[in-house]
Amino acid sequence: MCCRWCPPDPPTSDPGSVAELGEFGLIARITAGRGLPPDTVLGPGDDAAVLAAADGRVVVTTDVLVEGVHFRLDWSTPHQVGRKAVAANLADVTAMGAVPIALVVGLAMPGCTPVSTVDGLAAGMWEEAGQAGAGIVGGDVVSSAELVVSVTALGGLRGRAPVTRSGARPGDVLGLCGRLGWAAAGLAVLRRGFRSPLAVVGAHQVPEPPYGAGPQAATAGATAMIDISDGLLADAGHLAEASGVGIDINSAAVPVAGRLVEVASALGADARHWVLTGGEDHALLACFPADVALPAGWTELGVVLQGRGVTVDGRPYEGPGGWEHFAR
Amino acid sequence: MCCRWCPPDPPTSDPGSVAELGEFGLIARITAGRGLPPDTVLGPGDDAAVLAAADGRVVVTTDVLVEGVHFRLDWSTPHQVGRKAVAANLADVTAMGAVPIALVVGLAMPGCTPVSTVDGLAAGMWEEAGQAGAGIVGGDVVSSAELVVSVTALGGLRGRAPVTRSGARPGDVLGLCGRLGWAAAGLAVLRRGFRSPLAVVGAHQVPEPPYGAGPQAATAGATAMIDISDGLLADAGHLAEASGVGIDINSAAVPVAGRLVEVASALGADARHWVLTGGEDHALLACFPADVALPAGWTELGVVLQGRGVTVDGRPYEGPGGWEHFAR
Repeated sequence: MCCRWCPPDPPTSDPGSVAELGEFGLIARITAGRGLPPDTVLGPGDDAAVLAAADGRVVVTTDVLVEGVHFRLDWSTPHQVGRKAVAANLADVTAMGAVPIALVVGLAMPGCTPVSTVDGLAAGMWEEAGQAGAGIVGGDVVSSAELVVSVTALGGLRGRAPVTRSGARPGDVLGLCGRLGWAAAGLAVLRRGFRSPLAVVGAHQVPEPPYGAGPQAATAGATAMIDISDGLLADAGHLAEASGVGIDINSAAVPVAGRLVEVASALGADARHWVLTGGEDHALLACFPADVALPAGWTELGVVLQGRGVTVDGRPYEGPGGWEHFAR
Repeated sequence: MCCRWCPPDPPTSDPGSVAELGEFGLIARITAGRGLPPDTVLGPGDDAAVLAAADGRVVVTTDVLVEGVHFRLDWSTPHQVGRKAVAANLADVTAMGAVPIALVVGLAMPGCTPVSTVDGLAAGMWEEAGQAGAGIVGGDVVSSAELVVSVTALGGLRGRAPVTRSGARPGDVLGLCGRLGWAAAGLAVLRRGFRSPLAVVGAHQVPEPPYGAGPQAATAGATAMIDISDGLLADAGHLAEASGVGIDINSAAVPVAGRLVEVASALGADARHWVLTGGEDHALLACFPADVALPAGWTELGVVLQGRGVTVDGRPYEGPGGWEHFAR
């Protein structure tokens, strides 16, 4: 049993294709025998689920992952894709200072998709959700030409104000919790045709957002927060723009792990560039008033200034930026 | 201005393709200038949205629509597809006895998709949401090989208990609110290569769920409810199975509109079959205690019995049933 949501007896014999099982058989397979998250009032099997929203508010966010764009099944197992899809969403919930409650999931896939692929996706989604104290309370399964995983995550603020992107003020300190550049390094390795080192490839396959750090930062008095999905500079830019401030990053304070330097050296790449612009690690970036001690696990990375845009050591960064869909 | 959410000055010049506009330009285009639903605490533009959940609970449901499976852009305009995607989800919220609050939307599409297609989708989604008192508070836009529209809808119960599929009891009366067979008739017309009569083609393109009827039925004391997305017999079957009861439908009470009889006659089809098995009209089917007067707009359609399964005039229905994804 990999987590508290997983069924005790996973199927072992070949279950065939999605078309053979059918829509309702597939839904039963994804939901049967799972424990539901504590805030569930009504779980899967009805027209809609019902969740408790104890403080009278609910946080909601959605992400869509497409095979060949966000993941490749020759680079990641279905279980890893399921974990990544859920992690990306729950990181957004966490970045509001909220606690993940539950998810609803849409799966579109060809009829020839092996049921074992869906089993893997579902197990990965349940495992990642379970790590954050959440679970899957509903969904939709439809046929399509390509595999698309759509996840909507809900969270609760436990009485706190949401921490938005727009509350940063000049004089605030910029703090980081979580890893930078690891997923970008893993992607670079996979693109060269290698499958190791596992430390970086695994970081691309399954991010490790610091779920507890969002509510922790909110409690400590964070003025603004975002999860780093597009890259440190790009997402610091989103914070700066939303808050109407400038952000200067102290490059000496940005952690560049020795493992990334080794991998970059072997590939002839620049570890510092991965760290500054690589997305998908889903670390948290937050601003704190200068008189607030950063919570445990957070690193001071720079300062919030009057002005606009993001600088590194007072200068514009000279490389290409983060990820944007449809960008040419 | 088509509804209270629509911007006063829709774009008129050709805006090019999605790839030319880029992800962030696209998101701005979908959300800019829209009024947000009244329960919005925090709208689009952050890691997540925040909604009020006044009675401490939230209803949530999700649906995925795929081009070529759920809709065809040679049969429906993007505006109609947007309305249908939202209507299907809001009908599920309504079927719990809940009032729609808000939606989050995932759009996956090729980079070559005209921006006008996205404009149409967005306008349709906002229009339908507005008709139900809701709006779009967040979303995700990604690149993919085919057009996929993923919608998650949230609703509030306003202090009422949710009306599930499982509460029907022997002796209850089965009631219907909304249309049956119209979308199926429209689909049959389109499949034959015709584009009219508009009354039925339009019903396939844009369903008209009776949004107010769900909360109305809940207030009146409905014991169980479902929205008819798969077909009357199929969804009555879902009610019967979840409640552990049988349902007998009185065929003389099932409304077969004269317009459907005319269309069926022209196509050599069976209007009664459309009415009994056609999905996607999103009428509501609910059970009421025998001593409850059905609310205005509801029609008595049959009775709940001890036993299991669905019969028509006491006998099994002899035709094929409703829609199931991946069914062969």
